[in-house]
Amino acid sequence: MAQLIGGDSSLLRRINSAVTLRALRDGAVLTLTQLVGETGLSRPTVEGVIEGLIESGLVAEVEPADEGVRQRGRPARHFRFRAEAGHLLGVEIGTHGARAIVSDLRGRTLGAYGRPIDETTEADERLALVRATVAELLRRGGISRESLWAVGVGTPGVVDAEGVVQLGTALPGWTGLDLANRLRRSFRCPVLVENDANLAAIGEHWKGAAIGRGDVVFVLAGLSPGAGSLIGGRLHRGFGGAAGEIGSLHLLGQEDEPSRLLSTTESALRDPLDEAAVARVLRRAQQGDHVAMDVRDRFVARLVRDVAALVLAIDPQIVVIGGWASGLDGVVEPLRKQLGRLCLRPPEVQLAALGDAAIAIGAVKLAFDHAEQQLFAVDQ
Amino acid sequence: MAQLIGGDSSLLRRINSAVTLRALRDGAVLTLTQLVGETGLSRPTVEGVIEGLIESGLVAEVEPADEGVRQRGRPARHFRFRAEAGHLLGVEIGTHGARAIVSDLRGRTLGAYGRPIDETTEADERLALVRATVAELLRRGGISRESLWAVGVGTPGVVDAEGVVQLGTALPGWTGLDLANRLRRSFRCPVLVENDANLAAIGEHWKGAAIGRGDVVFVLAGLSPGAGSLIGGRLHRGFGGAAGEIGSLHLLGQEDEPSRLLSTTESALRDPLDEAAVARVLRRAQQGDHVAMDVRDRFVARLVRDVAALVLAIDPQIVVIGGWASGLDGVVEPLRKQLGRLCLRPPEVQLAALGDAAIAIGAVKLAFDHAEQQLFAVDQ
Repeated sequence: MAQLIGGDSSLLRRINSAVTLRALRDGAVLTLTQLVGETGLSRPTVEGVIEGLIESGLVAEVEPADEGVRQRGRPARHFRFRAEAGHLLGVEIGTHGARAIVSDLRGRTLGAYGRPIDETTEADERLALVRATVAELLRRGGISRESLWAVGVGTPGVVDAEGVVQLGTALPGWTGLDLANRLRRSFRCPVLVENDANLAAIGEHWKGAAIGRGDVVFVLAGLSPGAGSLIGGRLHRGFGGAAGEIGSLHLLGQEDEPSRLLSTTESALRDPLDEAAVARVLRRAQQGDHVAMDVRDRFVARLVRDVAALVLAIDPQIVVIGGWASGLDGVVEPLRKQLGRLCLRPPEVQLAALGDAAIAIGAVKLAFDHAEQQLFAVDQ
Repeated sequence: MAQLIGGDSSLLRRINSAVTLRALRDGAVLTLTQLVGETGLSRPTVEGVIEGLIESGLVAEVEPADEGVRQRGRPARHFRFRAEAGHLLGVEIGTHGARAIVSDLRGRTLGAYGRPIDETTEADERLALVRATVAELLRRGGISRESLWAVGVGTPGVVDAEGVVQLGTALPGWTGLDLANRLRRSFRCPVLVENDANLAAIGEHWKGAAIGRGDVVFVLAGLSPGAGSLIGGRLHRGFGGAAGEIGSLHLLGQEDEPSRLLSTTESALRDPLDEAAVARVLRRAQQGDHVAMDVRDRFVARLVRDVAALVLAIDPQIVVIGGWASGLDGVVEPLRKQLGRLCLRPPEVQLAALGDAAIAIGAVKLAFDHAEQQLFAVDQ
């Protein structure tokens, strides 16, 4: 712990408080002596800081577990971080539904709730259904809205730094929507909006297939694939928030449009969202229908090509494949093979570990990081 | 200027010295009074620091220019940064030649020299020719080798953090070459090696078409295109140093191989380096030969496709096109058009401003940044 010269004792207090709180947040139950050891602060300083933290509700004193043999003398006081002092909310707004996850201040999931939403639903109604999804989750968990410290939201499309959807063709009425402000009306805490594939990358890095990997490409494989990248452990949004929006790559060769690729007839499937028709084709492929199998293979080949372009551009340590198309037979193996052929140093290729929840979990992490700043920032 | 509590006066001296030196390096000729104003240090501190900097050769006292009306009293002392106290060297090792640029400590180019090298030249001989190129540059400029503070080197291929060429198919005997160590024998100063396209991105950002742009993709357009990217003003090397190595993208469609694309007959051009044959094709296209024009257009279309993939992955603010193929008729316009079609937010597209020198200038910047650390680092 760095010493500071006098003059700004409130800054010093904040730093000492943050250091103590972090020791408790990262650890389990600690005694005063342990806190002195962890923080490098003096015992009286820690005592003063702890009193303040208990008052603010962030720390609680706990009865030590009976350790069999009682120690003599005054028992040591034990403290813990009150992860229940606040809650974090992660919300996914998807083409076919909404999903919300709530966690405590340590980021531990406390509950999840989702509901389907028809793909044709207009923006206002969709937002009402999202609000209802959140309300139901909070109700079921007995969590008050006022206990929320931050809300993270994931959505398809290009989202700017202010949370406005600059382009969102996957959802009706989405382009131009000031999503952050629209949702802020329902909460008293900050609402942060981010592209869905970006959040899935964050989610898989936090709790999924990419833990401990700094350079990650997450592919949200669908009819129009999107991707999110972490570079050095940090989200790469791109200059305009559009990094990884590779959905239009297929325009470079019109014949490769997914609605045609996945069609078993001469006419294209309804573009861009006819996932039911796609599911039918894939079912037929699984049943051994040769036309459908060819169709599936063509689609996988295009996905592989799009991902290869991403990988060559970014050179990640790991590629994580999620989204509904990740469930297709033989996405991962052809991808490994192609990347091995194309890349000077092929990355690891894994299926997403969090499945459908990756985006909402990434949204929780967005809220978690914001809460971290509130807890540990000392510079104001 | 932050105050530090006592105890480590040598650290404090180093910080004060660095602050003073930076004021002089960034500015022009300054008086003591001006330095006090710029640094926030006391006059006696600046006086002490300046004496030390003059002793070390980094600062010189200069006679003030005659200002017409002489001021009364003792004239103010004037000081300047001695940019000539050391030199920086940037070297490009290319398929067809070597090029070296030397600068002063402000990064101002003092001289350049290049020589052709046959593409079939083996590694040992190539290195000897590179050394001879550097020697000739230094001889012509009257610059002693001992005055070099750092050397930056650009080379085709994937270069790891230690300066070893992990893969370099463009030059014979290049894969596996410990280029940094081989060149270090010729210099007493640090030698830093980086991929050529990466350095060109740095060069164009420093002094070329991408000044002031933080998110840059530089495309080294050739038979096998490579690219370098800056994200937030910093080089994005990728996990394995292979980011932007998009040369193999064409393998995704074999018919697109450049040696075939650029052939006007049924048989492919010699791959990968038959630029003379390409030049003949392009000359014929300029003369209006329709077959050659078709060939050129196909090649440009492929280049555009590769670049589009990069741009979608990274979402840069600006794309800078360099390398020999940047001279082709109609590279920039088709690229602008395609990116406009494909990208949610198309980037600016510019031809490289530094031409052939971009790589060597980027190499000088690599050396410059290293020298900066030596000049201004205070943490040891």
